[in-house]
Amino acid sequence: MKLQLHIFSCVFLGFCVFRKISCGNILVWHTEGSHWINLKPVLDTLVDRGHSVTVLAPNMSFFMDTDEPSRYHYEMFNVSLSLTDRNEWLEDYFNFSFYEMDQMNLLQIYIKFYQLLSRDMVFRLAYCDGILQSELVMDRLLKGKYDMIFADPIHLCSDLVAETLDVPLVYTLRYSAAHILEGLCGKVPVPPSYVPGALSKFTDKMTFSERVQNFLFYAVMDVSTVTLWTKYDKYYRRSTTYCEMMGKADLWLIRTYWDFEYPRPLLPNFKYVGGIHCSPAKQLPKDLEDFVQSSGDDGVVVFTLGSMVDKITKEKSNIIAAALGQIPQKVLWRYSGERPDTLAPNTRLCDWLPQNDLLGHAKTKAFITHGGTNGIYEAIYHGVPMVGIPLFGDQSDNMVHMKAKGAAVIMDFNSMQTEDLVEGLKAVINDPSYKENAMRLSRIYHDRPVSPRDEAVFWIEFVMRHKGARHLRAVAYNLTWYQYHSLDVFAFLLATGALALFIAYKIAKFCIIKCCFRSHYKRKND
Amino acid sequence: MKLQLHIFSCVFLGFCVFRKISCGNILVWHTEGSHWINLKPVLDTLVDRGHSVTVLAPNMSFFMDTDEPSRYHYEMFNVSLSLTDRNEWLEDYFNFSFYEMDQMNLLQIYIKFYQLLSRDMVFRLAYCDGILQSELVMDRLLKGKYDMIFADPIHLCSDLVAETLDVPLVYTLRYSAAHILEGLCGKVPVPPSYVPGALSKFTDKMTFSERVQNFLFYAVMDVSTVTLWTKYDKYYRRSTTYCEMMGKADLWLIRTYWDFEYPRPLLPNFKYVGGIHCSPAKQLPKDLEDFVQSSGDDGVVVFTLGSMVDKITKEKSNIIAAALGQIPQKVLWRYSGERPDTLAPNTRLCDWLPQNDLLGHAKTKAFITHGGTNGIYEAIYHGVPMVGIPLFGDQSDNMVHMKAKGAAVIMDFNSMQTEDLVEGLKAVINDPSYKENAMRLSRIYHDRPVSPRDEAVFWIEFVMRHKGARHLRAVAYNLTWYQYHSLDVFAFLLATGALALFIAYKIAKFCIIKCCFRSHYKRKND
Repeated sequence: MKLQLHIFSCVFLGFCVFRKISCGNILVWHTEGSHWINLKPVLDTLVDRGHSVTVLAPNMSFFMDTDEPSRYHYEMFNVSLSLTDRNEWLEDYFNFSFYEMDQMNLLQIYIKFYQLLSRDMVFRLAYCDGILQSELVMDRLLKGKYDMIFADPIHLCSDLVAETLDVPLVYTLRYSAAHILEGLCGKVPVPPSYVPGALSKFTDKMTFSERVQNFLFYAVMDVSTVTLWTKYDKYYRRSTTYCEMMGKADLWLIRTYWDFEYPRPLLPNFKYVGGIHCSPAKQLPKDLEDFVQSSGDDGVVVFTLGSMVDKITKEKSNIIAAALGQIPQKVLWRYSGERPDTLAPNTRLCDWLPQNDLLGHAKTKAFITHGGTNGIYEAIYHGVPMVGIPLFGDQSDNMVHMKAKGAAVIMDFNSMQTEDLVEGLKAVINDPSYKENAMRLSRIYHDRPVSPRDEAVFWIEFVMRHKGARHLRAVAYNLTWYQYHSLDVFAFLLATGALALFIAYKIAKFCIIKCCFRSHYKRKND
Repeated sequence: MKLQLHIFSCVFLGFCVFRKISCGNILVWHTEGSHWINLKPVLDTLVDRGHSVTVLAPNMSFFMDTDEPSRYHYEMFNVSLSLTDRNEWLEDYFNFSFYEMDQMNLLQIYIKFYQLLSRDMVFRLAYCDGILQSELVMDRLLKGKYDMIFADPIHLCSDLVAETLDVPLVYTLRYSAAHILEGLCGKVPVPPSYVPGALSKFTDKMTFSERVQNFLFYAVMDVSTVTLWTKYDKYYRRSTTYCEMMGKADLWLIRTYWDFEYPRPLLPNFKYVGGIHCSPAKQLPKDLEDFVQSSGDDGVVVFTLGSMVDKITKEKSNIIAAALGQIPQKVLWRYSGERPDTLAPNTRLCDWLPQNDLLGHAKTKAFITHGGTNGIYEAIYHGVPMVGIPLFGDQSDNMVHMKAKGAAVIMDFNSMQTEDLVEGLKAVINDPSYKENAMRLSRIYHDRPVSPRDEAVFWIEFVMRHKGARHLRAVAYNLTWYQYHSLDVFAFLLATGALALFIAYKIAKFCIIKCCFRSHYKRKND
């Protein structure tokens, strides 16, 4: 394996010299799930361009198959957590998101969510321990002579390692509470008047009442998060905080774009590279192509609930299958659970689907999705209208974005009945506005000066060429929160003003007394 | 002339079809001075790409030579102002900037500046009248069937005409008080803690005292500007304001970049295309090349005070010429005034210089500049360190930027003595840090995903293709200032909180009285 890699490196180096580009040595921080799926095409492009890519991978991972032959080198580390513990947490989280949440009041939801996040933080820090507390791993990283670290900041401690290795750090971020990670740590201004809080399900166009709620939502989320982060701050231990360390990243590659986001302020070191993983559709395998073609003019509907959710309850699957049976389209449903009793002949269940190739097929009329960013971006890329059945995390918010842009309808997973889904499907398939809006988003996606993948690769290479991107970093990162918001200036001006008023008052009083006293004295003497 | 243009249009149309791009019909708003010089290369590129470009030109212009053979069509309009009136104002303005300002206190400067701006506003509105009040011109513009208007917003009313013609509007802007035009009208967040007020001469790294001054500077400038703008608002007459109309522009092409600017927030419809006019150096004319080569290893210094200033006082020119005579380099000085008595043999005076080609010459060691953006960008492009002698407008601020980035020293035009200039020149030529920093800025300039001119052209074409760029426009433009800053929300929450406290107090009071009364009653009855 090592010899193979050495040969690879030599070939790459030759390739770089030939193409007159400087080849870098990139350390990629471990990540998981759809984040890993999203990252891989960028890593492939970096390898194609002759860079050496090493991926930090834990001994327990859902998605990183480090045994498979790969174009990257894997740097392994051990995490003292069992996969069972993690799975239990995941199951709890899914149960909460799918079923329990609907039975709870706001306070209960808040407490449960806070507890889940607290438990999750322990896991995240265990991953940090696996790297930072292991002399062997740290020694290998030091000896690796990396030119930069490329990390998704939802997995912690890349900033600490970047500091130890003294190399630049580039973040790639999707799941973000805009007003928290990007706002508090990334120093991007986030006016609550038109930037809806992440998970708030508001759009950028808010009524007065929504703006009030959004304002309060910001306050609650900010306070909760900063409170939660004290655990991270303790781990970070130095004369800094977790959030301050995040602010040291050279560049943030945000994995959305203005086809998906509501336009909002950014800083020069924030680059929007949404749809980084998208690519033109390839030919389908023969059996799938035959199935799709057999749909005739009605076309097909593609349905998946994402890479994290394989099974749903029998009751739900029956409701869904019954709905799918009522539309004239054929349906391809990625589902590995028990076969629903109501499954109609027009619907085919598959353990896996070539999602991107299907969405790019001319016969595809709609996409039923859980609202993960990767799937949404493939639908945008190919201009396919969506029916969203969001399940957890940012999925509800994502689908609200697509609905606001007129390219989707949203179902509520818990309360959804057969007729709701039928109605939703008929709407996006038969009402031409959904297709038109999906095509408009597709045009926006495709019509930009540089493709998202090229832009991401450009900035990664830029950071390696220049050992950072200092010219894009605002001074905001060096200010405390009260300096940033000019609160010290405001307090000073207020105090000065008050003092000036007080002195003026005292002088006036003195003059009046003097004046009255004199006239009083005068009158007395007269 | 008209036939020629018709043939041109046909050729262009054929060219467009051949290149499979849709050719547009662009109306360019009149502009002046360095703004016009800066715009021309973009217009040339647009013409090269097959678009039809029509430039609105007034009958009186300093820079637009509408009689010269040109690749653009000129749409003429009359302004009822004499060139003498305008020249008088300019002379007043220059006198104030060059000489009077130094003898004045802050209040006097403020009042004089306010008066000058007020007089200037009358001129600007006269240009608007020349277009909007002329049925003939407006009729021709309506019949022109333009696809968009491309305008520098320092010249007014392009927004009103864009609304009348119902076409998208793209701004190209350099001279801007960031916190006024871009902040108040463009809705870009401008935190006073690290975004220095335009003309304040602060950098982004401010001490507490500077932050206090900057905060106050914002307040004074904002209030003064909004007061001044009431004159414009009256002219705009409709249910809107001058500033609100500016906010309707589809896109803002800002003619700076992060080589020049301090990193600060932006919005997605703000594109930084600084150095849009720069190009590689061409071969010098033989006599100039011989002069440059004759400098040997010492090289040459290029000196110009810009396109607006031809002459300075005899005293000043003698001070400058004496300094130039004391350096070993040869000097090329663009100067059409009286020959200074102290002029040394190493200095050649010229009425005009091929500035860009000279700055790109290997033998050029330094650039003495008034600090206009165009010249600075050419110096950045070629990596030449600068000695700044700022005269008026944004020039002081521009040079402060270059000094902060370590690529320039600054002279004070009024107090500068011969030895100051000699010292400044020796510093930037002999201290390698200036050259290194200039080269660093040059690398930043050149190392971006798309060249500034290509990016500007891309977005202009985008706006024509999509009839705007709505997906980049933040909802901020639809909010009032108090909604934008959540002041109504804040007031509501404050009022609600106060009411809740009041009710709680009343209830508590009621309970206490009830309780006391009962015990009192009880005791009485016992």
